[in-house]
Amino acid sequence: MKTRFAATLLAVLPAFAEKSGAEPLPSWRDGAAKSAIVGFVQRVTAPGSPDFVHPAERIAAFDNDGTLWSEKPMYVQARFALDRVRALAAGHPGWKTEEPFASVLRGDDRKALAGGEQAVLKIIAASHGGTTAEQFSASVERWLAQARHPATGRLYTDMTYQPMVELLAYLRENGFKTFIVSGGGVAFIRPWCEGAYGVPPEQVIGSSVRLRYEVRKDEPVVVRQPEIDFVDDKAGKPVGIQRHIGRRPVIAFGNSDGDFEMLEWTTAGPGPRLGVIIHHTDEQREWAYDRESPVGRLDRALDEAPARGWRVVDMRRDWRQVFSPAKD
Amino acid sequence: MKTRFAATLLAVLPAFAEKSGAEPLPSWRDGAAKSAIVGFVQRVTAPGSPDFVHPAERIAAFDNDGTLWSEKPMYVQARFALDRVRALAAGHPGWKTEEPFASVLRGDDRKALAGGEQAVLKIIAASHGGTTAEQFSASVERWLAQARHPATGRLYTDMTYQPMVELLAYLRENGFKTFIVSGGGVAFIRPWCEGAYGVPPEQVIGSSVRLRYEVRKDEPVVVRQPEIDFVDDKAGKPVGIQRHIGRRPVIAFGNSDGDFEMLEWTTAGPGPRLGVIIHHTDEQREWAYDRESPVGRLDRALDEAPARGWRVVDMRRDWRQVFSPAKD
Repeated sequence: MKTRFAATLLAVLPAFAEKSGAEPLPSWRDGAAKSAIVGFVQRVTAPGSPDFVHPAERIAAFDNDGTLWSEKPMYVQARFALDRVRALAAGHPGWKTEEPFASVLRGDDRKALAGGEQAVLKIIAASHGGTTAEQFSASVERWLAQARHPATGRLYTDMTYQPMVELLAYLRENGFKTFIVSGGGVAFIRPWCEGAYGVPPEQVIGSSVRLRYEVRKDEPVVVRQPEIDFVDDKAGKPVGIQRHIGRRPVIAFGNSDGDFEMLEWTTAGPGPRLGVIIHHTDEQREWAYDRESPVGRLDRALDEAPARGWRVVDMRRDWRQVFSPAKD
Repeated sequence: MKTRFAATLLAVLPAFAEKSGAEPLPSWRDGAAKSAIVGFVQRVTAPGSPDFVHPAERIAAFDNDGTLWSEKPMYVQARFALDRVRALAAGHPGWKTEEPFASVLRGDDRKALAGGEQAVLKIIAASHGGTTAEQFSASVERWLAQARHPATGRLYTDMTYQPMVELLAYLRENGFKTFIVSGGGVAFIRPWCEGAYGVPPEQVIGSSVRLRYEVRKDEPVVVRQPEIDFVDDKAGKPVGIQRHIGRRPVIAFGNSDGDFEMLEWTTAGPGPRLGVIIHHTDEQREWAYDRESPVGRLDRALDEAPARGWRVVDMRRDWRQVFSPAKD
């Protein structure tokens, strides 16, 4: 009976919520993109609609970098990794003469990264491995509490996109489970995604290092190994989603060719599907980039969007506001 | 406003539910085990309690085989794998003379498994790889719809433990997120766990084969490879939980030494923690086994339970009823 009672109350909640009359997605300008999103959600949630999707199947997947927050001029996590190498340098005197660390310690991030994949892997291993899961999480929180974006001077967690934060909440109000599916590290996103996006840590899928369970002086811990275990990018995104969720999303949002396969797999499923690309077109309020950008390159997905029925959001035209209100 | 309104209603729901007055866990006999569980839940959910646990941190982890349903005389998934080898045999004429398949096809499961780990890996590769994720899921559903337990004649999904089904629901009513953390295959559990336990597929952690994304004749699919990717057992359980959930559970239930590390890690965390072992003591209604059993061996965890503060549930004494009511 308890369950029945709770279920009944929950079932009527959306109806009440709708009657409260607030316009959804206030930071989205009226136009084709907003109409497509709202129209889709209404179609799949209206009881009796031929496109009705059972609540259990309302899964929405969101890329993070460039889709939910800024990724320019450099992925936030790359900035974190470089700062963390500098923070750990005192314990590694050899780094003063060993590349790529020597360049990082001199503040020459460009030269440090010029070593390509090998350099990046060394920096990831040094900055992302070797701690317990709980220690790593705390180091991310400490860094985010004080690090600021070089161009805007804002805290990074204040560089989330307000229209997307509203969209995540709107989808949840309509019975969707919202997941982050990021090429970035899952452990880098989990400490702050609940506060920033309302997405709990267990609904984040991302790249990861290998983990190992150990008992250290009677204290059981999960230790991060200096070794990449899974890359949640490109064809890794559908794999990561299947591994974690076990079903295909109904909605996917991305902004780069790294999201191509996630959009492809999502929108090829049976029944109603929504695939959306956030196109960075706003050099006044954010950045404008696509085909030529080394970060967040958007080329093939932009070409194929019309034929595949993917909506392209024009950030400059479709968003009334870009960033979430600063919290500091 | 909508969100505020919904949040308010959700916040008062537990209060309403409590007032409905139904006794929780009707299939548990009154006694130390039930009191410990109910007392713990009341302590961590009572506002103002020094042991109050924030709803976001209310994570409960449950082993599956032997904790939520029967695992005797053989893991259900092993039975599925053997049946699936027989179902696929027509397409593999070579299996008639190749072990372990030849023994499986003659119905001599014992001899088939006598080949040890190599034999098991061959059977898993043959029975669990090579299909798309969606095809595999459908094959599990087809099999469960007709396969019956050799001793009880029941459908396997009717061999879930009613006291545990009630416990899962009781924890969810009290704001817990319930996860299955199984040594068995995640893809074997996901098709039926929502119906049987109220646990959605995305809240299942388990062993897995490697997955690969492919586009086959314009159809994007995730294909199961004939290769084990992750073993979610023993020290793999804390690793699987950290990978998937990103935080340590507050409650863990298991029944064998395969759950030792999960219980150890869970109950070593700060604040209130509950670790429980289901002890199979009921040869009348189910099975009685522990230290000597090849399936679900419970030895070290039983020895160390008192010192570690883990509760041991005596199935015969503590459960009024064992199995869920048959649905066929």
